[in-house]
Amino acid sequence: MSEPPKPLRVALAGLGTVGAGVIRLVEANAALIARRAGRPIRITVVGARDRNKDRGVDLSPYTWEDDMVIMGERDDVDVVVELVGGSDGPALACARTTIEAGKALVTANKAMIAHHGLELAGKAEAAKVALKFEAAVAGGIPVIKGLREGAAANAIERVYGILNGTCNYILTVMEDTGRDFADVLAEAQAKGYAEADPAFDIEGTDAAHKLSILAAIAFGSNIDFAGVDTAGITRLRAADIAQADALGYVIRLIGMAETPVGETGQTLFQRVQPHLVPFDHPLAHVDGATNAVVAEGNFSGRLLFQGAGAGDGPTASAVVADLIDIARGEIAAPFSVPVGELEALPRASSANRMGRSYVRFMVTDRPGVLAEITAALRDAGVSIESLIQKGRSADGAVMVAMVTHEGPESAVHEAVRLLAGSASLTEPPLVIHILGE
Amino acid sequence: MSEPPKPLRVALAGLGTVGAGVIRLVEANAALIARRAGRPIRITVVGARDRNKDRGVDLSPYTWEDDMVIMGERDDVDVVVELVGGSDGPALACARTTIEAGKALVTANKAMIAHHGLELAGKAEAAKVALKFEAAVAGGIPVIKGLREGAAANAIERVYGILNGTCNYILTVMEDTGRDFADVLAEAQAKGYAEADPAFDIEGTDAAHKLSILAAIAFGSNIDFAGVDTAGITRLRAADIAQADALGYVIRLIGMAETPVGETGQTLFQRVQPHLVPFDHPLAHVDGATNAVVAEGNFSGRLLFQGAGAGDGPTASAVVADLIDIARGEIAAPFSVPVGELEALPRASSANRMGRSYVRFMVTDRPGVLAEITAALRDAGVSIESLIQKGRSADGAVMVAMVTHEGPESAVHEAVRLLAGSASLTEPPLVIHILGE
Repeated sequence: MSEPPKPLRVALAGLGTVGAGVIRLVEANAALIARRAGRPIRITVVGARDRNKDRGVDLSPYTWEDDMVIMGERDDVDVVVELVGGSDGPALACARTTIEAGKALVTANKAMIAHHGLELAGKAEAAKVALKFEAAVAGGIPVIKGLREGAAANAIERVYGILNGTCNYILTVMEDTGRDFADVLAEAQAKGYAEADPAFDIEGTDAAHKLSILAAIAFGSNIDFAGVDTAGITRLRAADIAQADALGYVIRLIGMAETPVGETGQTLFQRVQPHLVPFDHPLAHVDGATNAVVAEGNFSGRLLFQGAGAGDGPTASAVVADLIDIARGEIAAPFSVPVGELEALPRASSANRMGRSYVRFMVTDRPGVLAEITAALRDAGVSIESLIQKGRSADGAVMVAMVTHEGPESAVHEAVRLLAGSASLTEPPLVIHILGE
Repeated sequence: MSEPPKPLRVALAGLGTVGAGVIRLVEANAALIARRAGRPIRITVVGARDRNKDRGVDLSPYTWEDDMVIMGERDDVDVVVELVGGSDGPALACARTTIEAGKALVTANKAMIAHHGLELAGKAEAAKVALKFEAAVAGGIPVIKGLREGAAANAIERVYGILNGTCNYILTVMEDTGRDFADVLAEAQAKGYAEADPAFDIEGTDAAHKLSILAAIAFGSNIDFAGVDTAGITRLRAADIAQADALGYVIRLIGMAETPVGETGQTLFQRVQPHLVPFDHPLAHVDGATNAVVAEGNFSGRLLFQGAGAGDGPTASAVVADLIDIARGEIAAPFSVPVGELEALPRASSANRMGRSYVRFMVTDRPGVLAEITAALRDAGVSIESLIQKGRSADGAVMVAMVTHEGPESAVHEAVRLLAGSASLTEPPLVIHILGE
């Protein structure tokens, strides 16, 4: 007891904005971190592709290591923080060698965890080292911990949320200004709120990575990133947002997972899509780049975790929270239950899924179009709750928007199929499901 | 490794609604709990004041122990869950003997932790056993964990939230129906949403207990329950809520703690009071019996944790989450840092505190009253942003409501002092501070 506690020695692989944020955080909050962790957390080694880039932080106190892959094999390193990014390549090589060397790994890399999380967790469990990735989902929000530990007593019935800050920022600006998607995206790119290549965000891939990780932890199931039914926000028009508003909804890109019971038992349903969210739902008030995750437990009821979904400070906060857990000696199963006990749930059939939907058609302005649409809906068995036809838009098309009664989602998609190729439509119909209770 | 893992053997002291909820939860979710905890959690012993009361759960599988105080000394018990309630008496005796017997203690008892948490934590640290109390604050929301672990990398700048579901329910109903406080309280009591003796809730004591616990964890400071500046919701009128609404606010009972730097260093500011909350703040959308806690970290930014603040299911969820942590072997300092390292922060002087306030006067309907009020405000140095005088209320008094510009809160209280005893006022002025950014 008389010897001072040994510091936890950390190597940073990758020195982008998050890496620099981790350095700033560990320096700024060193004293309180040591008190809470029971021992100091000390960055000993750093490395990145380019040694000479100015990152706004002083790297001179740290040993430079050119080869990020072997960082975990160094004697002066207890934990490697992988911030290189990319699902494979150097990031994955770094993760594997670190764990195989018997060292703990912390990562913010959602793509790598979504694709290789089970392999890495299996290796970590075998090596009895920690693998932690709080920063991989929802930035600074401790939602992995909230699910794994805070809600651990519950069977989780549904987990869903706003998982991509770029999309939420764009939707919020569209909502506030009435401007169209492409316009707002261009501005977000100019301001640095969206990447030069924004596909990863706006097509829903990033949210799908995060959702697949959340689902595995919530349900104790294998990660099934490929099984996420993913659509982005690129087809949304300002008029959709205005129409939703008139009906009492906002539009948000929602990632949602649940485990409906199919004919052969529990299945896994995972979807990332824009949803209409009723004004009185907590997610309707999540604006800008904020993320939020809801977990519905069979005893806890609805739990909401909300905060900054990205940014160097929040992400560094999550990374260092993981380091503090490791310094405190926590080595629990990365996905809450050992990898060997995760269930391989079959993908849910969406055929029987019930719900209400918003469907928007852009049509040519001529007689009979509405009759054609409503006939297709009738033939598919879709019951219409409300319908509105708007005046001509800038491109000459007319917007017809409707909300369906509760019914099988498959019927709506059947109606859309019946209308495929119709000369009356100037673009394919857009279906947006309404977030249910 | 070939032997099956030993179950964690749990004694339940107290079998009210939460105790029965814990039994139901442990039975319903036994398999998943064992998977996540790495071993089964088994209730072995139960006890309560009255053995013969029907609690809606079958107690026959469990050993009955009449003496809750000595439960922790039994050989068939690893953890005692204290659900007796009360800050002292049998609850405290049970807690002390349990820890002194080298057993872990889980409790939902906010009063006991607010009054004796440091003593118990000190004993637990000395005995190297866990003391956990997630259920004591904000019911099913894992906010203790969120602060202790999720936000552990941050210096917390402010922690605040809606900590009493009864008050929030009453305020929400007042808001939705325009009815007055006494009327809504009576209905809530009839429906079982408020206690027969509601003082503990509506006077703010319950929220103050919780706030003092959150503050200690957030700031690494001693618990100072007596230092919470506490006011309840009993003086609020329907007209206040209507007026707040017209100004763009809702009224919520907010518990708030921060550590302003005074002349001699950091101080502790703790307040439970109704606040005006701007519509665009996440807490403005927390309705009904829901609780929500915001923690603002210096790197994480604003984190929000929201969920059911009471009820047998949510509270049991928090209790069993603590049991799972214990089953996993976690024995960390109950208040995040060892008791000996908690700082005894002096209470903040509110003299220099800046903010905007809503001030409501009920006055007699005669000439000169407004001049008298505005003169007092001027003499105290209060600058008025907006003022409205409403028609006569049912009791013949006239309501004058105003919002001040940003300024020292002490000036507002000085104006109130200057008006004390004025024959123009039919009741003392009501000051409600506006929740700042």
